[in-house]
Amino acid sequence: MLKTKLTELLGIDHPVVSAPMGSVSGGRLATAVTAAGGLGLVGVSYGDAAFIDEHLPIAAAGGGVWGAGCVMFTFDERPGLWDKVLGYAPPVVALSFGNADQVRRYVSEARSAGAHAVVQVHEPEQAEAALAAGASALIAQGAEAGGHHKVRATMPLIPTIVDLVQGAVPVIAAGGVADGRGLAACLALGADGVMLGTRFTATEESLATPGFKATLPTTRAADTVNTRIFDQVRGIPWDRAYPARAVANDFYRTWGHREDELIAHRAEVEPDWAAAVAADDVQQRAMFAGEVVDLVNDIRPAGELVRELVTEAESVIARVSAATRG
Amino acid sequence: MLKTKLTELLGIDHPVVSAPMGSVSGGRLATAVTAAGGLGLVGVSYGDAAFIDEHLPIAAAGGGVWGAGCVMFTFDERPGLWDKVLGYAPPVVALSFGNADQVRRYVSEARSAGAHAVVQVHEPEQAEAALAAGASALIAQGAEAGGHHKVRATMPLIPTIVDLVQGAVPVIAAGGVADGRGLAACLALGADGVMLGTRFTATEESLATPGFKATLPTTRAADTVNTRIFDQVRGIPWDRAYPARAVANDFYRTWGHREDELIAHRAEVEPDWAAAVAADDVQQRAMFAGEVVDLVNDIRPAGELVRELVTEAESVIARVSAATRG
Repeated sequence: MLKTKLTELLGIDHPVVSAPMGSVSGGRLATAVTAAGGLGLVGVSYGDAAFIDEHLPIAAAGGGVWGAGCVMFTFDERPGLWDKVLGYAPPVVALSFGNADQVRRYVSEARSAGAHAVVQVHEPEQAEAALAAGASALIAQGAEAGGHHKVRATMPLIPTIVDLVQGAVPVIAAGGVADGRGLAACLALGADGVMLGTRFTATEESLATPGFKATLPTTRAADTVNTRIFDQVRGIPWDRAYPARAVANDFYRTWGHREDELIAHRAEVEPDWAAAVAADDVQQRAMFAGEVVDLVNDIRPAGELVRELVTEAESVIARVSAATRG
Repeated sequence: MLKTKLTELLGIDHPVVSAPMGSVSGGRLATAVTAAGGLGLVGVSYGDAAFIDEHLPIAAAGGGVWGAGCVMFTFDERPGLWDKVLGYAPPVVALSFGNADQVRRYVSEARSAGAHAVVQVHEPEQAEAALAAGASALIAQGAEAGGHHKVRATMPLIPTIVDLVQGAVPVIAAGGVADGRGLAACLALGADGVMLGTRFTATEESLATPGFKATLPTTRAADTVNTRIFDQVRGIPWDRAYPARAVANDFYRTWGHREDELIAHRAEVEPDWAAAVAADDVQQRAMFAGEVVDLVNDIRPAGELVRELVTEAESVIARVSAATRG
């Protein structure tokens, strides 16, 4: 048992959250995490009506405390999608990658709809904006995370954000955590829970393709790179402040240092790339993974992972506690 | 009290190490840290006969378990300096930034001289090489550290190195730690101690200049940058794998994006720069600081810091332990 302000706020058993990863975190993964006592988040991500209508009902049917994760900057132009998300009455909405205006708007609307609005931040200024907007909790994400991130690392970022928040809302640590040691470490830093992405990608329930799942256990942190090319080929207008950490593959080796050329030739490149992705070609597709992939050596059932994270964290805390008694 | 494999190996009271920072970690700082029960390291760094002859005797006279930190790649061409370091019989030699051959040589010679040889590593391959060379302990340093570093972040790096080491030698975590929360977190990750740089720069005993010390409490992580220009202007042939994190100042704003030009014009630039540094011009001098500068808000006596780190870590462990009991 690990009781924190996060478990109290949400009424969940364990302070463990599965990240809302686009194309990875579907209803089945969220349900498995929630059923095991954590908080399962569906990766609505950039928003896609078919995905929302397929996966949010699965999570909602699972019951318990689940959530939908939305990338704010992509929702402004498609208001119907946001209403569609709220229509499924997620108990939690996780909001990431928006400017201060977007944070205010989506936090306000999520809370009006009765959801806890959890906002992901990457630096102190964003935490201040999220608190001012009335966020229910913060996710503080370090740059060792997989996928999109900013530049601050988890170890110094968490206590900095915790000091700023001063207990006003729970803080969830993300980036670099894959096991009970990371969970215990983040609690020591003052966080109230952890969010894991890469570790939950490597689960039986994730939507990651067979090729992607087979790749993770043999991938090391040194095989990951920060790049924008997977956003460029998809034509997603990411702010340049947010590169994405992905597994280096042939597509990266071809375009990683020719981003401008890729932008210029996207119309020719994209169809072949999309066809390769559809065929699960791991040398072409984006496989977002964090530095913590070093600690991910198998594909596991998500619920088992949640339980093991907590059990291991308890053992770790007992071990460290014993050290204080000499 | 925090007993770990590191405190047992070295016979010290607390698993707290002050980093051997060049021009910052003199004999007085090392002595203060050692006297408080930690391990104080003198920053011999690139080696300078006058510095060695001034500061190692201070640390040696303080008695207890102290050490000298040497940057390996700069010692090969100056064998007299290495012998001079060993001549002061440091109980610990901290070795950083060398290739596998240098690690083998300096570990072997340090151990033959009766010292514990602690090797700093930044990735799993370097840890393997250090273990093979017979290192007494490892320092695993994350990229959020101040000064020179590689790319992996502390949170995922520490458990990765701990798994690799499998208890063969103690692992000291470095990068992103400034207080008892960080110490407790690193112990949870499996480390046997922590090494702090930025926090010990901001102490009464450090050799940091008045201007540098006055800068730290008002500097935020966002004010730090990774750059090679301070190495270039000093003409130190650092491997490009190791940029250095420093406080952005006018010198950085002038040259940070014109490194090649700085190399080409070094002969003209260096004298004025050196004169400004001698005058403690903080807009010109290198002020190495880590992301954890966010948590450094005062200048403190080093011994008080050591004791507070341990006391706070004990409170943190008690707090987290209470969470496991609901």
